[in-house]
Amino acid sequence: MQSVDVPVGLLGYGTVGAAVARLLAEQGDEIERATGHRLRIARALVRDPAKERSFEPEPGVLTTEPGDVLDDPSLRLVAEVMGGVEPAGSYVGALLASGRSVVTANKQLVARRGAELFATAASSGAQLRFEASVCAAIPVIKALREALVVTNVHRVLGIVNGTTNFILSAMDEGRSYDDALAEAQRLGYAEADPTDDVTGLDAAAKIAILATVAFGSRVPLDWVEATGIEAVRREHVEAARALDMRLKLLARATLAGERVDVRVGPALVDVHHPLATVEGPFNAVMLQGDAIREITLEGPGAGGVETASAVIADLVSIVGTTGTGFLQNDPVWRELERMPPGDLASPWYLRLRVDDRAGVLARLAHELAAEDVSVARLVQQPADGEALLHVVTHEAPAGRVEAALASIRGLPEWRGEASALPVVSERGVDGFR
Amino acid sequence: MQSVDVPVGLLGYGTVGAAVARLLAEQGDEIERATGHRLRIARALVRDPAKERSFEPEPGVLTTEPGDVLDDPSLRLVAEVMGGVEPAGSYVGALLASGRSVVTANKQLVARRGAELFATAASSGAQLRFEASVCAAIPVIKALREALVVTNVHRVLGIVNGTTNFILSAMDEGRSYDDALAEAQRLGYAEADPTDDVTGLDAAAKIAILATVAFGSRVPLDWVEATGIEAVRREHVEAARALDMRLKLLARATLAGERVDVRVGPALVDVHHPLATVEGPFNAVMLQGDAIREITLEGPGAGGVETASAVIADLVSIVGTTGTGFLQNDPVWRELERMPPGDLASPWYLRLRVDDRAGVLARLAHELAAEDVSVARLVQQPADGEALLHVVTHEAPAGRVEAALASIRGLPEWRGEASALPVVSERGVDGFR
Repeated sequence: MQSVDVPVGLLGYGTVGAAVARLLAEQGDEIERATGHRLRIARALVRDPAKERSFEPEPGVLTTEPGDVLDDPSLRLVAEVMGGVEPAGSYVGALLASGRSVVTANKQLVARRGAELFATAASSGAQLRFEASVCAAIPVIKALREALVVTNVHRVLGIVNGTTNFILSAMDEGRSYDDALAEAQRLGYAEADPTDDVTGLDAAAKIAILATVAFGSRVPLDWVEATGIEAVRREHVEAARALDMRLKLLARATLAGERVDVRVGPALVDVHHPLATVEGPFNAVMLQGDAIREITLEGPGAGGVETASAVIADLVSIVGTTGTGFLQNDPVWRELERMPPGDLASPWYLRLRVDDRAGVLARLAHELAAEDVSVARLVQQPADGEALLHVVTHEAPAGRVEAALASIRGLPEWRGEASALPVVSERGVDGFR
Repeated sequence: MQSVDVPVGLLGYGTVGAAVARLLAEQGDEIERATGHRLRIARALVRDPAKERSFEPEPGVLTTEPGDVLDDPSLRLVAEVMGGVEPAGSYVGALLASGRSVVTANKQLVARRGAELFATAASSGAQLRFEASVCAAIPVIKALREALVVTNVHRVLGIVNGTTNFILSAMDEGRSYDDALAEAQRLGYAEADPTDDVTGLDAAAKIAILATVAFGSRVPLDWVEATGIEAVRREHVEAARALDMRLKLLARATLAGERVDVRVGPALVDVHHPLATVEGPFNAVMLQGDAIREITLEGPGAGGVETASAVIADLVSIVGTTGTGFLQNDPVWRELERMPPGDLASPWYLRLRVDDRAGVLARLAHELAAEDVSVARLVQQPADGEALLHVVTHEAPAGRVEAALASIRGLPEWRGEASALPVVSERGVDGFR
C-alpha cells in the first residue's frame, strides 16, 4: 500500500491530547503498516502554549487561535479532547458543517448535543466518532456498532464509573465511605470535587450514549434516573456480601417492546455474575442480545493513554472508511418511548426495619403479596429489640415494590427503614443465573 | 445512502450456514440501514440438498456443484462455514485467487493454512476475514486489529474452549470428570468424540490465531505446547479452591522481547482475576498491552447463531471497507522467534508428595533454592503417613521449576507425586494483583 500523509488537528492538548500525540509519534509505523496512512498532529488548540506538556509537540503545532484549526482546510480530521460542552460543541459543529470528520472523547457533549451534531455530520458527509467518550479503551461502541450488527441488544448493564467502583471495592474491604473516597483522591481515581462521579451524573451520560447506540434511538440525558453512592454505608456493602452478592453502582438500560428504561444506581450483583468481580477503578459493560446471549467487555475505564488509544482507533477507522458509507454516522434510526420508571421489572433487595415481635412477618408478607411482590429469600437479623429484614424478591415492577414499601412505612411496627435496591443475577444462558 | 444489492455465496449450509441465512433474512433491514448494503444468500454449496435445514433457503439456492459458487463471478463475497481443512482450503484459495473476498469460521484452516491464504488474498486484492474462527461472537479479532491498533499487546490469556470450561466448572461443583463430560455431552456442549476439546487441540488452534494477530508474527500450530484436562482429577480442582484459586484450561501467549511462547494447559487462576469467574460454556480472552493495561472480552464461545453473528459482522466489514485499504489482510508483519519452552517465567503451583518426617521440608526447600525457585505460599496436608505439599512459587522460568522437580523426584523421601501448574494472579493495574 502507498502511504498517505494525514495531518490531524487537536482541540485541546492536556493529558489525553498529549497521549494522542505521543502514541501517534511512537506507533506511527504500526498504524501505517496496518492502514497505509501516516497520521501526525499538525495543529493543536490550547489556552496556554507555555504550559509544560507530558509529550512536547513539534514547534509551531500549538496555537491559541481557534481559527488555526477550524479554518485550516488541510485538517480533514480533528480530535476533540478539550472537554466541556462549550466552546467544544461550537467547534465540533463548525468542523462537521465544513465537512471535516471529528473524533471526540467528550461524553457530556455526545450525550447532550449528539442529535444536533450527528445531523450536521449527516448533511455534510463528515464522520463523527465517539468511542473514547465511554469507558476509554474498552471498544464497546465499536462492538455494538460493527461486531453486533445483527444482534438485537435488549439490555446493557455496566459498571461505567471507575471512581465509585473503586470506592465500593474499598468499602467491601472494610473501609468507610469517607476513607475510601480520600484514598481514591490520593491515587488520582477521584477528582478533588468528586460530585459528578459520586452522584451518578458521569455514569448517566455514559449509559445515555450506550443506550442510544444499543437501541438505535436517542436517549436524552434527562431520561436517566440517576442515584449515586453518597447514601451507601458499610452495612449495605456487608448485607450484600452476606447474601453472596456485591454492591455496585450499576448503569442499566433496558429495551422492552418499544419502550426504554435507563437508570443508574446502587444494585446488588450476584457473585457469579461477571460484573460482580469488576474491582477497583475498572469498568465493564455487559450486552445482552438475541444472537449473542451476552458479551461482557472489561478494562480500565479512564486514563490519558487509554482514552488516547480509543481516540486513535476512531481516527484510524475514519481514515479507513471515508467515502465507503460503511456506517451511517448517527446510530439513531428510530424513536422509542421512555418507559414509565415504575414499570421496570427486576428482582429487588428490600431492607426493612421493624419491631421484633410475633405477627410482624405476616403483616409484611401481606403488604408485599398485596402488590404481587413474591419473596425468594429472607434473612432476619436482630437489632436492639428490633429486627432488620433482608428480603430478596422475585422479579416485580419497581412501582409495585414502591407501593408495597409505602404501605409498610404506614405499619405501626415499622421502625424507620424500608428501602429497595435492584438485584442482578440473571445471565443470558441456560443453566447460568 | 443508496442501497446496494450484495449476493453472498455460502460454502456449507449446516448449523452455522443456516443461522447466517436466517440472520441475513431477518436483520437485512438493520444491516442496510447501517451500511447501505442489502446482503442476501444467493448460492450455497451443500452435500445433500434434501436434508432438512433449520432455516430453509430460497428455492434454487442450494447446489452440490462447487463450481456454482466458485465460478460465479457475481458472488464477490463468500462465507466458508463447511469446516475441515480440505476441501475447504482449496475452495477458499480458489476464491481468493480470483479476487473474491472470503469470511471463514474455520479455525483449523486459518491456523494451518493462514500464511498461504493471506498471501493469495494479498496478491489478488481480496479480503480474508476470520473473526468467527475464534470464540464465536466475541469480537476479539476486531478488537485486536482495529480498536487496539496503537497498543503493543504483549500477552493474551484465554479460556477459549467451552467444553473443557464446562467440565471444569462442573467438577468445581463436585462432579467427577466422567460425570461432567457426560453432562456436557447431554447438553450439547461436547461432541460424542470430545478428543479435540479435552486434549487442548481446539484451544491450541485458537491461541495460535490470537497470538498471530496480537503479535503480528505467524505462530504455527506446532509451536503451541498443548496439554488437555484428561489428567485433571477432583483433588486438583479442590486444591486450587483451597488456595483461593480456580483450575482452568488456560491458553496463553506471551511476547518477551522478540520471542513468543504459546501454550495451552491447566492453570490455577486467582479468584480476583477476571478469568476465574468465567463459568460453564463461556469463553473469555484477556489482552494485556501498553496503552490499555488489560481488556477482557467474555461471552459464549460457540453456538450456531453466535458464530453466524461473527460471520455477518465480517461480511459487513468487507462490504464497508472494500477498496479503501483499511486493513492489510494478513495480520502478520514481522517474524518473531519461538521462545524455548523452559524460558517462560510464571508463578507456579507445585504439588509434592513426600514422607511426613523431620527434615523433608528443608530438603525440598534446598532443591527449589538450588534452582532459584522461591516459595510464596506453602500448605502442608497430611496424607496417610505421607505429606502432600501445595507450594505456590514466585515467578520462575519453567525450565528451572522442571529441574527442581527432577531433583525432588530423586530424593529418597519422594512419594510419587511432583507436578507443576502455572498460576495466574497478576493484573495489569497498580494495586491489583
